Amino acid sequence: MSRWWRTAATLSLGAGLGVSASRLWTPATSAEDQEDGLLGRVPAVPVPRIHASQVTVSPGSSGALMKYGFPSLSNVRTRESYVSSYDPRTRTPSWVIERLSGASLSGTADRKLCDFKEDDSVHVFHRATNTDYRGSGLDRGHMAAAANHKWSQKAMDDTFYLSNVVPQNPHLNQNAWNNLEKLCRSLTKSYTNVYVCTGPLYLPRQEANGKLYVRYQVVGRNHVAVPTHFFKVLILERAEGEGVELRSYVLPNEPVDEKIPLERFLVPIESIERASGLLFVPNIMKRSGSLRAITAK
Amino acid sequence: MSRWWRTAATLSLGAGLGVSASRLWTPATSAEDQEDGLLGRVPAVPVPRIHASQVTVSPGSSGALMKYGFPSLSNVRTRESYVSSYDPRTRTPSWVIERLSGASLSGTADRKLCDFKEDDSVHVFHRATNTDYRGSGLDRGHMAAAANHKWSQKAMDDTFYLSNVVPQNPHLNQNAWNNLEKLCRSLTKSYTNVYVCTGPLYLPRQEANGKLYVRYQVVGRNHVAVPTHFFKVLILERAEGEGVELRSYVLPNEPVDEKIPLERFLVPIESIERASGLLFVPNIMKRSGSLRAITAK
Repeated sequence: MSRWWRTAATLSLGAGLGVSASRLWTPATSAEDQEDGLLGRVPAVPVPRIHASQVTVSPGSSGALMKYGFPSLSNVRTRESYVSSYDPRTRTPSWVIERLSGASLSGTADRKLCDFKEDDSVHVFHRATNTDYRGSGLDRGHMAAAANHKWSQKAMDDTFYLSNVVPQNPHLNQNAWNNLEKLCRSLTKSYTNVYVCTGPLYLPRQEANGKLYVRYQVVGRNHVAVPTHFFKVLILERAEGEGVELRSYVLPNEPVDEKIPLERFLVPIESIERASGLLFVPNIMKRSGSLRAITAK
Repeated sequence: MSRWWRTAATLSLGAGLGVSASRLWTPATSAEDQEDGLLGRVPAVPVPRIHASQVTVSPGSSGALMKYGFPSLSNVRTRESYVSSYDPRTRTPSWVIERLSGASLSGTADRKLCDFKEDDSVHVFHRATNTDYRGSGLDRGHMAAAANHKWSQKAMDDTFYLSNVVPQNPHLNQNAWNNLEKLCRSLTKSYTNVYVCTGPLYLPRQEANGKLYVRYQVVGRNHVAVPTHFFKVLILERAEGEGVELRSYVLPNEPVDEKIPLERFLVPIESIERASGLLFVPNIMKRSGSLRAITAK
């Protein structure tokens, strides 16, 4: 098996729970819920209340993006095309949420008019610059993808803030990761709305002494962190009241053979929640009667 | 030179600025301020407004603790004896603030009545347990020290939440770190109030390939992060209107010879601000006309 697969296995083991191939969450009825009150232990994080009327507005509305809550509430920033949470220690976002639909994908916004730019709203001590990436051999990897926001030049421009960017292996960025972004866009044909939450992960590995260590590079004068992995969590909506589907991927920040089907990178959402310090399921469950999680077969 | 000293040097170099032995900050007049508008770039973090009348209350009042603002506003929790910011990814606090005074140090609270306990307010996925520490060879290191809060049994009890605890080298915890905690307490003889902010750091090191890497162990089923270093930032108040003094220490999470004077671990506050993703100076400057930073001689 290739290396990424072993990592995914470690991720699941690290979560201290076996991987179930596919799961159906329903509130207060699942075996897991009864066992450890997992869904009952919703954290004390206040999720902003959204009125139903706010949910069906323009592609970039932050009201719409908040429909399923946010995975954390630290340093939240709202942009034309996404909402993000910034981690001042790593100089990258912790997560970025977008909502894709047919409408957000069509338009005339042009990537050639965009330039990567510093985010002045971040204190200079904690801000990534273009210079930090120079000579690193790493790409400035978009978390909210530029091509997801053709509906508005401003929306596309906003994806070029370095606070939406993470140092990414160029091969990954230009191949398997790009394919995953295309997959997200193609899902707008089958689903009314595709919520995409993307971010970095720092996963531990066992070293020769048998202990687990997290190890990651930092680049540039500002020590921008190079994550070991990336996650993408998709929340897929069909019609109102039909519940939602969840697909959660983890890819390593290294070259990934394009021939490996993307489904092989599906992982249980719980493993991402544990590793990232974020929560997705409790917030989604508040909004949706049931949640079908699509994980590795 | 011993290893910790090299680390302190790396820390300063990592900050991309030379170490000045001692600095006087005054708003809008220092050379540094003019150079890069450092103090002008106060982040968009809303600091809770405190009325002067709230500032002179009982030792554990969170109103009093907020006098100089908080270094971040993520997952802030208020306890009897301290305010903390929890990092759900590392399963440890990012920082903990206490206010020490003669009053907080005297009392009959008994450490023997205290037990380390899980913090139920943290989601089970992101919560450290006593089991995580077992067999790790590491101490459950208090950030807000138990002995700082003899004024109330509840205040002392609250320091035993594992959300106030970080895996700490036992030698460090029981020797040099303990001495630093004693130093903080002894400063209450010379200063009216001693604000102490303590937390973990994850500092990069250069590896053989010339690149910088952050590497740290994680322990237990919940992968509790073992920081490479700890910081302690002291904000020292004499009488009203006299300005405040700042002392900021960084110690490595490894055995430290007690014979090394603690002053040798003083570092510029900026290096802690850069490495931790936190901000201290802008908030303090809002409250105090001038700030004298005591750093390594």
